[in-house]
Amino acid sequence: MQNRYRLLIETADKKGLIHKITGVLLKYELNIEQNNEFVERDSNRFFMRTDISGIARENLFDELREILGADSEIKLIPAEKKRVVIMVTKEHHCLSDLLIRHKYNELEFTIAAVTSNYDNLRSLTENFDIPFHFISHENHSRESHEAELIKVIKNYDPKYIILAKYMRILTPNFVENFANKIINIHHSFLPAFIGANPYKQAYNRGVKIIGATAHFVNNNLDEGPIIAQSVLNVNHTHSAEDMARSGKEIEKLTLAKALRLVFDDRVFIYKNKTIIFES
Amino acid sequence: MQNRYRLLIETADKKGLIHKITGVLLKYELNIEQNNEFVERDSNRFFMRTDISGIARENLFDELREILGADSEIKLIPAEKKRVVIMVTKEHHCLSDLLIRHKYNELEFTIAAVTSNYDNLRSLTENFDIPFHFISHENHSRESHEAELIKVIKNYDPKYIILAKYMRILTPNFVENFANKIINIHHSFLPAFIGANPYKQAYNRGVKIIGATAHFVNNNLDEGPIIAQSVLNVNHTHSAEDMARSGKEIEKLTLAKALRLVFDDRVFIYKNKTIIFES
Amino acid sequence: MQNRYRLLIETADKKGLIHKITGVLLKYELNIEQNNEFVERDSNRFFMRTDISGIARENLFDELREILGADSEIKLIPAEKKRVVIMVTKEHHCLSDLLIRHKYNELEFTIAAVTSNYDNLRSLTENFDIPFHFISHENHSRESHEAELIKVIKNYDPKYIILAKYMRILTPNFVENFANKIINIHHSFLPAFIGANPYKQAYNRGVKIIGATAHFVNNNLDEGPIIAQSVLNVNHTHSAEDMARSGKEIEKLTLAKALRLVFDDRVFIYKNKTIIFES
Amino acid sequence: MQNRYRLLIETADKKGLIHKITGVLLKYELNIEQNNEFVERDSNRFFMRTDISGIARENLFDELREILGADSEIKLIPAEKKRVVIMVTKEHHCLSDLLIRHKYNELEFTIAAVTSNYDNLRSLTENFDIPFHFISHENHSRESHEAELIKVIKNYDPKYIILAKYMRILTPNFVENFANKIINIHHSFLPAFIGANPYKQAYNRGVKIIGATAHFVNNNLDEGPIIAQSVLNVNHTHSAEDMARSGKEIEKLTLAKALRLVFDDRVFIYKNKTIIFES
Repeated sequence: MQNRYRLLIETADKKGLIHKITGVLLKYELNIEQNNEFVERDSNRFFMRTDISGIARENLFDELREILGADSEIKLIPAEKKRVVIMVTKEHHCLSDLLIRHKYNELEFTIAAVTSNYDNLRSLTENFDIPFHFISHENHSRESHEAELIKVIKNYDPKYIILAKYMRILTPNFVENFANKIINIHHSFLPAFIGANPYKQAYNRGVKIIGATAHFVNNNLDEGPIIAQSVLNVNHTHSAEDMARSGKEIEKLTLAKALRLVFDDRVFIYKNKTIIFES
Repeated sequence: MQNRYRLLIETADKKGLIHKITGVLLKYELNIEQNNEFVERDSNRFFMRTDISGIARENLFDELREILGADSEIKLIPAEKKRVVIMVTKEHHCLSDLLIRHKYNELEFTIAAVTSNYDNLRSLTENFDIPFHFISHENHSRESHEAELIKVIKNYDPKYIILAKYMRILTPNFVENFANKIINIHHSFLPAFIGANPYKQAYNRGVKIIGATAHFVNNNLDEGPIIAQSVLNVNHTHSAEDMARSGKEIEKLTLAKALRLVFDDRVFIYKNKTIIFES
Repeated sequence: MQNRYRLLIETADKKGLIHKITGVLLKYELNIEQNNEFVERDSNRFFMRTDISGIARENLFDELREILGADSEIKLIPAEKKRVVIMVTKEHHCLSDLLIRHKYNELEFTIAAVTSNYDNLRSLTENFDIPFHFISHENHSRESHEAELIKVIKNYDPKYIILAKYMRILTPNFVENFANKIINIHHSFLPAFIGANPYKQAYNRGVKIIGATAHFVNNNLDEGPIIAQSVLNVNHTHSAEDMARSGKEIEKLTLAKALRLVFDDRVFIYKNKTIIFES
Repeated sequence: MQNRYRLLIETADKKGLIHKITGVLLKYELNIEQNNEFVERDSNRFFMRTDISGIARENLFDELREILGADSEIKLIPAEKKRVVIMVTKEHHCLSDLLIRHKYNELEFTIAAVTSNYDNLRSLTENFDIPFHFISHENHSRESHEAELIKVIKNYDPKYIILAKYMRILTPNFVENFANKIINIHHSFLPAFIGANPYKQAYNRGVKIIGATAHFVNNNLDEGPIIAQSVLNVNHTHSAEDMARSGKEIEKLTLAKALRLVFDDRVFIYKNKTIIFES
């Protein structure tokens, strides 16, 4: 039986790397369906993503490890849907977009559950037969609220956590629990207007373009590796509310675009940046 | 003989404004070729741009002034080319684009002269039969350098001064000498990476989009009213140099786009923002 | 009580038009909230859209008619949601986008019903509490199938009929029943690849951009007035299926964009083209 | 001494290809700087572009040929500027853009000469120290005119011929003389408005987007492999002349974008399509 995998490699660049790696794949009679490489020149780091088909035996991994050395990351991931938990607050626009895509298999993911600190998106979510967890932050310390969230989320063992307009700041503890697994959609270009009410700020500044940024979350708020950015034109006739509405449109598109890349295992994180093999 | 003018009005909004203004135009037998209005709702300020043809007699202006009251700005501008002085430092990309557009009448402007604090763009400029003034900043205080610049520029009596990659900071005194007449092309989105080497910063941050902003210059550096913004996609394979190259492409396009709007008298400045009647 | 209306006028251009029209509005103490005009120069036809607030009395209309003459179109439309019927075949992507926007009041419309010649989108539609009519074309002549459709649709008295991927050709009779009320989303740029399987054609031709076109439907298939067009980049790594998937993304965006303009009464039809007052 | 080359390979896909090819490179101690592969699945054709540095000895080529078999294309191209001849008619916009880019080394090319069937762009060209050949088509048969052109062009032994708004149809004989070497900029999307005055057609159709297409020329007019396509938005206020002006802007951008890819040896031609390794 033929299976499909993605082989992801990060290692120090050296002469003959591709030859050696493909030699191992050949030895185990694996087919290369698609192959991408990139060398980050600032630190001579080699990245490779290979779509392979065949039967990946135990020894393959060990043999690659031996060739590439200890200072390498090697992943062999089955080409299958990623299980995710979605976290929201009150806004529906990213969530409803993801629910529709999930229902019609338009993204390679399974939504295991949705959590929210409000209850207003319950019926939307449940209409699509997805479990909804209302975990209020009221009368809770941030720590105890997050502890409850972590417990619920871990129960689903998700590969990724999607912040689909989750409007609360996460603690370093929460982020460390899901390192490199949390993806956020940010309401603007980064760097950009900082603080509350970014569209009011954009309106006041009279910008002609607004954007959105999807990124991994690390401990510096809004500073994690950028996956995708998109923009829309606006003009003087747009009120701050119009800009917010346009912002929602571009947010849901940018998040879906980023998730497509991530779920397809096309995104490497390196030095607070992403390397993305788009096609 | 029929002439073409643009009537630009800014005044407090009140009922019957358009009726009264068009009544005056009708009385003087002027044709409305194109007409745009906008009311800024935050402060109920009315803006109107009208392309008119006919003969604009003296009294027209007085009569409009009487109807609209003292707290109004009224301009009647002949539809003709704008005389400009272009200021550059060393980079050619915006200047050469403007020289070509000037030669082939692709923008409604006349380049009276080019000034630079370096001499390297002299032959390019003079090949297009435009006077070039090399005014070095070396061995000069900022004030004495600008005094020389102001003297040379004022001699040409320009309607606008185009900073086509002029890389020195202007003093408030210089800016006041040419209030609302200076247009700059900025190497990024605003707000954005601040300080030296923005493309190196963009590269380090791993952005997926870079942009450019054309804006009027006021006394807060990079904070004047935005006229136009545009973007280009970049990715992890782009070095900081690649991003700088792409940045130049989008800079020259964005500057030309902004100038087209300004020279066509489509841009009002209000409250550090622009109101632009694009068509 | 203050109401909001849109006054839409199409008439022969002549001197003093704006003055006269705004004079009538002033007489009836109506406020102009926003105003746009355009003169089509090929045939000197004047178009005007005015957002007005106040109380629109009977006489207003008659007085405008008297001033503008018989060869004019004058509409006074309350600023309210438009009732629509959506027609689909099997694909969900435009329908689900519209159902979500409807649920969250993100477009100024009311979905009265959905009709389809297949039954597969019933549960999606009914989950949003919208009536779904399965009207099969099998074992029916085109005429009898359309007769049934027309009966069902007319029962809802819709202002617009949205072809959200309705994949059957409509007869002139059907189109005449709903003149200037039918809006289609077309799977490509127009003019473009004609006939079946346009994305296969695009793939075979190796295009680098695919697009979508939203347009009114008249009797020449795919030849009605264009409302909106948008594009996405593609490349050699995209299969015909990938292009079809991207095509769906751009289709739903383009349709929503066109509907926003139409429902806001910003779109005039003239000479198989549209005049759109975007803002 | 280290040199830089691009190794371009097209061959039938089979297991172990990358391993074998990189084995040869390793044997000759060549470094892989960047590497891209693609397999066209319709016909299982393998494409590879590799930036290599080192010393490419004679035997390298023979050894690759032996491994890959007769049904393969192998090219080893020094990473150096491409010599081109530019053909124009009367319009300056693409030519002046290329002359500026040439002067400032912004494209990897050398303009050997410009030919035209009119004389009006002579001074522009000669100001940039490029030879200009006025070869009138008047009083010549198409064959004799092209014979003269071919003679002049071949004298410069160009790697590519750029049709930078050359408005005459080329005969199959001319095209065969420069197979896969002629690049054209087309005034529209392809497929698109066919025949004379495309912008008038676009205006009459009321399109909301216009585009441009850069493509290789083969014997079917406007039907050669597409390299790049771009678009600009237009609207009802744009006259046919405005659309033509916007068209020129997008033409010169699209041509420059295509040439950057071609001169960097990133474009393979296969089955009337292009495979482009963008980065």
